[in-house]
Amino acid sequence: MRALVLRGASELIVRDDAPDPRPAFGQVLAQVKACGICGSDLHFVQHAATMLGLLADMEGLPDFGAPPLDLGRDVFMGHEFAAEVLEVGPDTVGPEPGTLVTSVPIMLTPMGLRDIVYSNDLPAGYGERILLSAPFIQVVPNGLDPRHAALAEPMAVGLHAVNRSGIAVGDGAVVLGCGPVGLAVIAALGLRGVEPIVAADLSPARRSLASVMGAHEVVDPAIEPAFDAWKRTGRGRAPVVFEAIGVPGIIDDALRVAPAQSRIVVVGVCMQPDTVRPFFAISKELSLQFVLGYDPAEFETSLRSIAEGEIDVAPLITGEVGLDGAPGAFRELADPERHCKVMVVP
Amino acid sequence: MRALVLRGASELIVRDDAPDPRPAFGQVLAQVKACGICGSDLHFVQHAATMLGLLADMEGLPDFGAPPLDLGRDVFMGHEFAAEVLEVGPDTVGPEPGTLVTSVPIMLTPMGLRDIVYSNDLPAGYGERILLSAPFIQVVPNGLDPRHAALAEPMAVGLHAVNRSGIAVGDGAVVLGCGPVGLAVIAALGLRGVEPIVAADLSPARRSLASVMGAHEVVDPAIEPAFDAWKRTGRGRAPVVFEAIGVPGIIDDALRVAPAQSRIVVVGVCMQPDTVRPFFAISKELSLQFVLGYDPAEFETSLRSIAEGEIDVAPLITGEVGLDGAPGAFRELADPERHCKVMVVP
Repeated sequence: MRALVLRGASELIVRDDAPDPRPAFGQVLAQVKACGICGSDLHFVQHAATMLGLLADMEGLPDFGAPPLDLGRDVFMGHEFAAEVLEVGPDTVGPEPGTLVTSVPIMLTPMGLRDIVYSNDLPAGYGERILLSAPFIQVVPNGLDPRHAALAEPMAVGLHAVNRSGIAVGDGAVVLGCGPVGLAVIAALGLRGVEPIVAADLSPARRSLASVMGAHEVVDPAIEPAFDAWKRTGRGRAPVVFEAIGVPGIIDDALRVAPAQSRIVVVGVCMQPDTVRPFFAISKELSLQFVLGYDPAEFETSLRSIAEGEIDVAPLITGEVGLDGAPGAFRELADPERHCKVMVVP
Repeated sequence: MRALVLRGASELIVRDDAPDPRPAFGQVLAQVKACGICGSDLHFVQHAATMLGLLADMEGLPDFGAPPLDLGRDVFMGHEFAAEVLEVGPDTVGPEPGTLVTSVPIMLTPMGLRDIVYSNDLPAGYGERILLSAPFIQVVPNGLDPRHAALAEPMAVGLHAVNRSGIAVGDGAVVLGCGPVGLAVIAALGLRGVEPIVAADLSPARRSLASVMGAHEVVDPAIEPAFDAWKRTGRGRAPVVFEAIGVPGIIDDALRVAPAQSRIVVVGVCMQPDTVRPFFAISKELSLQFVLGYDPAEFETSLRSIAEGEIDVAPLITGEVGLDGAPGAFRELADPERHCKVMVVP
């Protein structure tokens, strides 16, 4: 089948000869209808070797026994997908063929949990067909458009960040950065009833999306810094801050300017070493909560929020390409004015 | 009167001509019986100009209207003190002369709260006499030795860190660094019933004190890293980590090796810029809670814990000097084998 792969750690190639997946016990074969390009994918293409080096150097991660990724082999990518069931594996309970489904990008295997994304072996969302793990499958409700269902995944990232922050009604928030992750955070904050939500981004297009997703106060930090806007609107409270930019220097600047006792949730993924001045954080008793991903319940909640119209993800989709157009879309996503979320329709 | 001051931002001088304090309304004049040398004081002597620069660059601190410290003038220091009441100010309710007291190092003034420590104007603990704010005074109970009462202050720092961590019975802890702050954390963890408490320090003398203060497992990180000891003893849980070293690189190393979902409480004060790799913290959803100081209730709790024998601070005291010996003691405190806490008895 056709699939986009990362080859030689840095090159995106569309293969015509990717192995045709066959569903085994516990698996469902599905045809990918849409797969969003995620910032993590952009990071991975830029920093794959660095990322694997950091993972190898790190201790304390749960060990599911997965073999390390081999960048010398092709890597399958794409984890924000919706797909139509083609075939349910032998002795497996799964939805009828033709059903539109989505899933957390995790496969249960006899050897343990495996990521469906960034895999040398398991096909992922940037391909014609995908294998899903039957117990993780979510049927897409309400006749939802597959492109919108696919965005349950990035919206779950925002919901998870909001859940981990412990923010509650009566609190306010500052969201630094209005890319897809920041926008997902804004949507989850809005549903939670947080007010005000102050959002900041240098890009006019992204600021406009921040308003659409529910931010109450949206600023261009080149004109008014986010925390100045918070001072105007936050009624003297310490905000919960969501750092959704993920480039070096942002955390230190947040530590420097955030009000005393602020909680800073780091949901942006900075791949480079970053310099901070701990004295800022100590003097003001700040906290940094780093978050990643979501759990299956959060994924399901996000899918339902979209299907029931509580969150409108349509404005986030700024482009659509086939597999052949995906490498170009990866390049174009660098321009925040042009794109927010590009959907690949294999 | 005689007092030790910091002169020209870096030199410790004993003055014979420091102004004789007189108690005003709301104040109590007391004779200092003992004042501990704090790591913050060592930091301040080394980094005073840097610290003031960071404070000037920082936003979000509560503003009590205090004038900025002038390093061109002498700076009074010493905030871990016990003192005997000499005279109660006019129209002021305070303890009888002769009463041994201590206090949080804060003065209520008509202009707002002022630090008793690091002040150009208010005398502090490294002097013969001190002014205290009557509402903040704690009478030292149970005939407690003033040198031990003075240590209510550093022990309150440990208690506050433990309170802010949210650690509870059923949790375990890793304490990185067994200087006075790490030891205060260990004592507070022990009283809380946390088990195990794994402590690590390169110094044999400090490791020995860690055991005395209640650590269950004490390791030399050059032989067995703290988190390896945690793996042996932590029963698969994520620990609450207390970083009490405060030098560059320690936070990044903790992020690299701590188990997923660990909470890291930063109680060590690193004055320099520090490089971290956020990817470690993101991958494992770690949190960093930076803490500072304590509140008056925590100060009082620590004083009572010492007075009632729940915490024995006697082993922490490794030296005693007069004012003239204080500059030398500052230098000697650099050697962890030789000293833990040196008391100045003016």
